[in-house]
Amino acid sequence: MRVGVLGGGQLGRMLALAGHPLGHSFTFLDPTPDPPMAAVARGIRASFDDPAAREELARASDVLTFEFENVSLEAARWISQRVPLMPSLRALEAKRDRLTEKQLFASLGIPTARYATAGTADEFERAVEELGFPVVVKTRSQGYDGKGQAVLRDPRHLQRVWEALRGAPLLLESFVPFDRELSILAVRALDGSVRSYPLVENHHASGILRNTLAPAEGVDAGLQAQAERFAGALLEHLRYVGVLALELFQVGDRLLANEFAPRVHNSGHWTIEGAWTSQFSNHIRAVTGMPLGDTRVRGRSLMVNILGELPDLVRTAAVPLSSLHLYGKAPKPGRKLGHVTLCCAGESPADLAAFDASRRELLSLVDSHLAAPPLAPPPTLPFPV
Amino acid sequence: MRVGVLGGGQLGRMLALAGHPLGHSFTFLDPTPDPPMAAVARGIRASFDDPAAREELARASDVLTFEFENVSLEAARWISQRVPLMPSLRALEAKRDRLTEKQLFASLGIPTARYATAGTADEFERAVEELGFPVVVKTRSQGYDGKGQAVLRDPRHLQRVWEALRGAPLLLESFVPFDRELSILAVRALDGSVRSYPLVENHHASGILRNTLAPAEGVDAGLQAQAERFAGALLEHLRYVGVLALELFQVGDRLLANEFAPRVHNSGHWTIEGAWTSQFSNHIRAVTGMPLGDTRVRGRSLMVNILGELPDLVRTAAVPLSSLHLYGKAPKPGRKLGHVTLCCAGESPADLAAFDASRRELLSLVDSHLAAPPLAPPPTLPFPV
Repeated sequence: MRVGVLGGGQLGRMLALAGHPLGHSFTFLDPTPDPPMAAVARGIRASFDDPAAREELARASDVLTFEFENVSLEAARWISQRVPLMPSLRALEAKRDRLTEKQLFASLGIPTARYATAGTADEFERAVEELGFPVVVKTRSQGYDGKGQAVLRDPRHLQRVWEALRGAPLLLESFVPFDRELSILAVRALDGSVRSYPLVENHHASGILRNTLAPAEGVDAGLQAQAERFAGALLEHLRYVGVLALELFQVGDRLLANEFAPRVHNSGHWTIEGAWTSQFSNHIRAVTGMPLGDTRVRGRSLMVNILGELPDLVRTAAVPLSSLHLYGKAPKPGRKLGHVTLCCAGESPADLAAFDASRRELLSLVDSHLAAPPLAPPPTLPFPV
Repeated sequence: MRVGVLGGGQLGRMLALAGHPLGHSFTFLDPTPDPPMAAVARGIRASFDDPAAREELARASDVLTFEFENVSLEAARWISQRVPLMPSLRALEAKRDRLTEKQLFASLGIPTARYATAGTADEFERAVEELGFPVVVKTRSQGYDGKGQAVLRDPRHLQRVWEALRGAPLLLESFVPFDRELSILAVRALDGSVRSYPLVENHHASGILRNTLAPAEGVDAGLQAQAERFAGALLEHLRYVGVLALELFQVGDRLLANEFAPRVHNSGHWTIEGAWTSQFSNHIRAVTGMPLGDTRVRGRSLMVNILGELPDLVRTAAVPLSSLHLYGKAPKPGRKLGHVTLCCAGESPADLAAFDASRRELLSLVDSHLAAPPLAPPPTLPFPV
């Protein structure tokens, strides 16, 4: 089947790498020069809103999907009228605005942090007053990877933050004193069948994912069932086809939804080695009408992002049971250049000890230049915009 | 690193799919239109002997390797004088002729079947007399996948076979009454370190691999050590860098070498899911000077080739714990179109029973149209040439 993909970043690259063995061919639409997908599939370099490029993509595709949700709704709508778009336009519409996303959660009985919106300086002040400090301030649209959001802890920064935003519509959230951040990936096939991966534990710094432990430790059946119920409700409501990621806060035995991503997700990269079927393979299986693959883990694994600069690749590749994944991107502070997945050989004490030793080594090789928080907001402007 | 590859079939395709995540880029040289690598990397379409194409490939590559050993020695030599060629030219030279291959085995103390050569009708008759029936007749060069070889069981076919060969130099082998066919894959890094995969059991029909069970059952440490010693001797002698496959006959507790392949090999495809590091990743790691990955199995697995025609892909993809790998080739009798690897979830009786059930299902889906031997030589000519 000919699969068209909006966006050609690392997610697209890994979709193509997983999709070629399933017998499909790929065409990507991406506006950037030499995007990560360029090495592994055919690309059209143009804006998502370029009519000729959209026409070309539609002609080259039997089915369309996306790896980047910030495409214009107009472009997605135009395309979905010509070629089946999966996941659905409804998923993109719900993600267009953090308010509609929160309202969707509420309508499906999925708990979230308390929130308020603000379009004026007065509303902003009232919202902060209502929710109390610390408060998470987010622009209502176009935010990802910590962009367009910050935690406001000090009333003295209020004015400065408001000014920095230049009137962008905001969503403020009560800061959740969470135990840890978890996420769940679930996938829905064309025939409506759903499979979920186990909950994983994510560690962020400045809003960017640093590493994921899969499966999360100490998750009981109740917590997993809660997460699957939430993800399942979203999938059903959106008539979704493909992989969806749901980011969650764990507070005791409760889960609160943070946000969802209508696509394969960084917190699912471990599935390439760590699960029987990767999120990439399952997404392509779903959107091409194939049956889903098994989402169980093959053991425990740790995914570590390579951010900003490349580590010593020879030493990194030598870490036992590690798998290197580079995206073909030029180094730049904060940029996701690749990831490494470390697997644990088994559950014996020796296996666990070896895994722990490799984990330390890997983190020191890949993550150590990030030990000081280089991505933290500068002191004069607590809000990265 | 920029990796150039001679040959762009499915082996090249899977090398690229494994090599991109390691951060390398690929250029293939292949004379055929739309070879399997075309979907996943850059290709130069030209004969291996085209001087301009060779020049272009050399300029585009920091290191060169091959996925097809029947390139002309002259082309390989020309290239190796400009760009490091791995595995070595010596490996290609040894494979040029079945006689030099047998002599190499002998010089390294690797036992083989008894053999004799024949260049004339008289020599042919004498060789058959000496070795007795059944006897395996092979052309000395350009044979693979059962091409250019046959088992001669009946003295009445002697004259017909000789005539069919039109004077091609022959190597005749005494037929080994083997218990089973095994193979071992081993990989040698640029720094000389060597790792071996466990022995696997291969099932052929008409000289073409149908399926591989990994690891082979009932292999004791002595047999594995024997195979590793043979493969290690070849790797050392050839100053080899990359993956080498050695096909073996098991006779009791002894191994006889059949032939080696100076490349990744069909009997190693199971390593993508079944080992901690695939043969493709390890080959690319080796030729790019990276450290080797772990060659241990992650459990047992079965690889089944898709030959000649595509199976029902939806049903095949639905077989539990199976992974589909298609090569993007048009169906044609006997052609390798893809493979499916089936993994076993664990070693419990329930896991083994599920594996066995899936194995039956997979073989019936993928392999059943081959149940009657469609690839057997026609009755009038027992020698496929």
